Amino acid sequence: MLEKIVSPQSLSALSYGELEALAAEIRQTLVDAAARQGGHLASNLGAVELTLALHRVFRSPQDKIIFDVGHQSYTHKLLTGRQALAQTLRAEGGVSGFPKRSESEHDVFETGHASTAISAALGFARARDLQYDNYAVVALVGDGAMTGGLCYEALNDAGSRPTQLLVVLNDNEMSISRNVGALSTYLTHLRGSRRWIGAKQVVKRGLNRVPLVGAPLAGLMERVKRSIKRMLVPGEFFEALGFAYLGPIDGHDIPTLEHVLADAYAMHRPVVVHAITQKGRGYALAEHKPEAFHGVAPFFVENGRARTRQDDGLVSACDVAGEALLALAREDERVVAITAAMPQGTGLDAFSRAFPERFFDVGIAEEHAVTMAAGLAAAGMRPYFGVYATFLQRSMDQLLHDVCLQNLPVTVLVDHAGFVAGDGATHQGVYDLTMLRAMPHLTVWSPCDAPELCAMLAESLQLRGPCVIRYPRSLPLRAGGDIAVGRWRLIADGDGPALLGYGASVGLAQAAAGLLQRDGLRPAVWSLSSLQADEEAMSLLAKRPLVAVVEEQRVAGGMGEMIAAGLPGVRVLRLGVGDQVPCAHSLDGLRGACGLDAAQIAARVKEAWHAR
Amino acid sequence: MLEKIVSPQSLSALSYGELEALAAEIRQTLVDAAARQGGHLASNLGAVELTLALHRVFRSPQDKIIFDVGHQSYTHKLLTGRQALAQTLRAEGGVSGFPKRSESEHDVFETGHASTAISAALGFARARDLQYDNYAVVALVGDGAMTGGLCYEALNDAGSRPTQLLVVLNDNEMSISRNVGALSTYLTHLRGSRRWIGAKQVVKRGLNRVPLVGAPLAGLMERVKRSIKRMLVPGEFFEALGFAYLGPIDGHDIPTLEHVLADAYAMHRPVVVHAITQKGRGYALAEHKPEAFHGVAPFFVENGRARTRQDDGLVSACDVAGEALLALAREDERVVAITAAMPQGTGLDAFSRAFPERFFDVGIAEEHAVTMAAGLAAAGMRPYFGVYATFLQRSMDQLLHDVCLQNLPVTVLVDHAGFVAGDGATHQGVYDLTMLRAMPHLTVWSPCDAPELCAMLAESLQLRGPCVIRYPRSLPLRAGGDIAVGRWRLIADGDGPALLGYGASVGLAQAAAGLLQRDGLRPAVWSLSSLQADEEAMSLLAKRPLVAVVEEQRVAGGMGEMIAAGLPGVRVLRLGVGDQVPCAHSLDGLRGACGLDAAQIAARVKEAWHAR
Repeated sequence: MLEKIVSPQSLSALSYGELEALAAEIRQTLVDAAARQGGHLASNLGAVELTLALHRVFRSPQDKIIFDVGHQSYTHKLLTGRQALAQTLRAEGGVSGFPKRSESEHDVFETGHASTAISAALGFARARDLQYDNYAVVALVGDGAMTGGLCYEALNDAGSRPTQLLVVLNDNEMSISRNVGALSTYLTHLRGSRRWIGAKQVVKRGLNRVPLVGAPLAGLMERVKRSIKRMLVPGEFFEALGFAYLGPIDGHDIPTLEHVLADAYAMHRPVVVHAITQKGRGYALAEHKPEAFHGVAPFFVENGRARTRQDDGLVSACDVAGEALLALAREDERVVAITAAMPQGTGLDAFSRAFPERFFDVGIAEEHAVTMAAGLAAAGMRPYFGVYATFLQRSMDQLLHDVCLQNLPVTVLVDHAGFVAGDGATHQGVYDLTMLRAMPHLTVWSPCDAPELCAMLAESLQLRGPCVIRYPRSLPLRAGGDIAVGRWRLIADGDGPALLGYGASVGLAQAAAGLLQRDGLRPAVWSLSSLQADEEAMSLLAKRPLVAVVEEQRVAGGMGEMIAAGLPGVRVLRLGVGDQVPCAHSLDGLRGACGLDAAQIAARVKEAWHAR
Repeated sequence: MLEKIVSPQSLSALSYGELEALAAEIRQTLVDAAARQGGHLASNLGAVELTLALHRVFRSPQDKIIFDVGHQSYTHKLLTGRQALAQTLRAEGGVSGFPKRSESEHDVFETGHASTAISAALGFARARDLQYDNYAVVALVGDGAMTGGLCYEALNDAGSRPTQLLVVLNDNEMSISRNVGALSTYLTHLRGSRRWIGAKQVVKRGLNRVPLVGAPLAGLMERVKRSIKRMLVPGEFFEALGFAYLGPIDGHDIPTLEHVLADAYAMHRPVVVHAITQKGRGYALAEHKPEAFHGVAPFFVENGRARTRQDDGLVSACDVAGEALLALAREDERVVAITAAMPQGTGLDAFSRAFPERFFDVGIAEEHAVTMAAGLAAAGMRPYFGVYATFLQRSMDQLLHDVCLQNLPVTVLVDHAGFVAGDGATHQGVYDLTMLRAMPHLTVWSPCDAPELCAMLAESLQLRGPCVIRYPRSLPLRAGGDIAVGRWRLIADGDGPALLGYGASVGLAQAAAGLLQRDGLRPAVWSLSSLQADEEAMSLLAKRPLVAVVEEQRVAGGMGEMIAAGLPGVRVLRLGVGDQVPCAHSLDGLRGACGLDAAQIAARVKEAWHAR
């Protein structure tokens, strides 16, 4: 049936029975696609009926539907001319796992990081009003993303100038792992209240049955007050922010969804529709363990097991960091760990089990995570915040203003630094290092193998100021050379060109060096394990005729620029990310497009060597 | 009486009558200090009794009192051994206008940017619990700062793990100018509800007078429901976030404040105490126009007029930008303007009056401002966001993720770039440029005089992608040389050393060039009016023996590094901010401490010139 859906308009001819069959077919397609190519599964399985209902009630692309985070947009893609997703999800040249404006006019705004959709939708709504247009604007937001302050800022702003703006709260009781925070408790309470409108009717009927005489009024009043309070509670949080609230409703019940969405639109004001969905719905393994099927590598549908195991001599850096931090915490009671809704992704789950009272999952709230860490440090603790490089972008002001200016001993463990496969442009860790160079007092270390990461973690506890330890997703067990934390590390010596990298690009430099050796050159390879210049290493490098700095990071403001500026007499090649936006899906694709695979690096070094 | 207050403990011996006299004396001191030295006046005048009550109920520094933003901390400073504030507020070597840990053990956490205090306080509270300590933790937060998402993230997190944490909401119905957003409406509603506890009593008494028989119950129920709803409303927003709510109370009534603060502490859980205060209280001119007395230059107490007028040949850049933008908006209906709670400070007030429907004040919510602008741009508008350089740090992820990756035509007008006098370390515009260098697709322009700023604004409308126009607080009417937007600008030619600056540092370069001329050198001066390299200018500079890049900005990741890396054969002096934190109070002090006054620049250039 799916193949007959040439556009969202095709949905209007379908009966509810046919829609149910279509939903089942879509779920099968989603499971197969994710099993083959990897991707975000559980969140997409939960949003099938919601997406169908949205596309039946609203007319995309005239009406604007904005998917927060974007990893619940697969059904939307299948319904808007991108059924190739079934075969090419996240494949090079295939369908992206996130909304892409270049892919379809139905993707009106690109997302990737959480909590942006309401702000963007408000922008669309205000533009529409100024243009005297009258399309609908809808933001689909998960309950996890609602912990982000950006959502609150947008709700607060939207609620102050009434116009049509629909926020559909897709409440699956979790973000990536189980959801946290007081709002989550509040939403749980709402869920318990069932349909608010319905509940109000029930209480009213109940009141009418109350005998008029004989009951002690005070006691009755108390009971009534409690009932009414329960009735009133649902809306208050959103109503305080100027929104009408409709819900909670069953997010898998298409007729009800359509009815309530149409009602909400007809109100022509800011409305929150609260839909309860089940993450992973329709695939038993994902229903049972949705967090394990949030973002997945290719797997076997029958048992959910990964198809391939990593066997490239690399280890998971977050596992190494998590274990090392746990060991530190056992030694030192001041050590506490913080995550922004990613205990698994940042390797902190073992820590959270061993020291639950010293572990803080603050929700998708990287800004708060850093400022809270500053408070902990000012009060004598040693906080470690684990976060992906791309999400640390959210905390730059907090890191500067609250941590670095006060020179507080907060350590940030930055995972997924450099190129990141699978998630496209919005998730690359190639921007944060330049931003980090703006920070005074900040020590930044980049390990190139697992032992160095462990050594840096241990050393960080001795620092009196802030520290960032920044590493790629995977690290080799051993890179070569001697580790001295804070110093640059000579991995392999030679009197030819010097190839300098950090993190994952040390491996690239090594591979390129191998190719250059075959051509008769004798390259040296260094790891720039500290972002601060190593003066002794710099004086050695100053005697070289050619230095190449290889970085999975913007050239602008990067290490290559710093070294080139510091070595005026030396020819310094700056090999990194230029003004293009890396968006390929595989590591090889990302590196190739930026001229950063071993062959291209070797070719550029060789050419410069012979031209010197 | 104030001189007898040697520490907050001295307050406990005072009667309420004496406290009232002390409050009056403090107000007089605040007015005199701000009149003499400039500073934040209206917010401090509003928080006198609140601060007195906090220091009577809690024992600083054992108990931790954290002042959000910090520009309501003057009374706190006067009570904690810093009565020198009366003479030395914001003077070089004197008392800072914001909390400073180096100044006093009573300043437990430094603030400057809004909305950080609850996060920091939660860090203290959690550290206290882990250390089995039992001090109180209090965050004093203005209603304006509550529009920031960071506050919401902190409330949401704090509410999920109950522990003692007191948030005092200092509600003066405005942040810097009149407050905006739905929460503000909500707070207005709360204000109307008077004392909640009191009101509840009244309604209960009313109910007991209701005749038991004869009244139509359904109608009664409706009325009761409405009354109860009014009773219940106050807390719901904060209660949904896991906080107890007490208030609203009169923030100038010390006995009531003490009573409620003590009650709130005794609850040993997260509590919001909502205190209503009057900004500017006690100084009639500030009561009448609090926004004019938010941050002030020295003024005459009698009439509030500024003591000195700017007469240095410079004009206010935000006025120039505001007028130019207004002219653009008259020509082009797509132009809209956005501010984060600073319509005056960013020169947009005339715009807001001329085009109220095309002007958006989003509250202290820089993150949302940028993502909302991205939505507007995606929907065909041309949004301009006016913001100070230091506050743009808040939006780095939104600028990268929502604007630059999508290459949307959002223009950010960045005011207060470079050194900023008066507000100390937290308000310097010396970090953002390095961060901006991380952004792909972004055009960054730095005008060095008023006509160039106007030309850049006009030109920005022709761009198809994002743009930042970054300028200091003041610009000269005319700097010299020809303006060609996007190109570097030769201000003065000469065959000696080339001095390069941008924004305010063009003036520094010119002044240094003047000194060098007296020494017989023939310096050239350039304005790096575009952050992108001007290849033609670079090829001219490549022939120079000495280039000095002067920047009021971090050397790391700055323009000097970019140029040095691009001119390998040239001696390039990078003159900017090193790893020290600029914190002097005057422009001269800031420049002098960083080696960036004309004399030091000239000396370094001369030395390098003769050593070449």
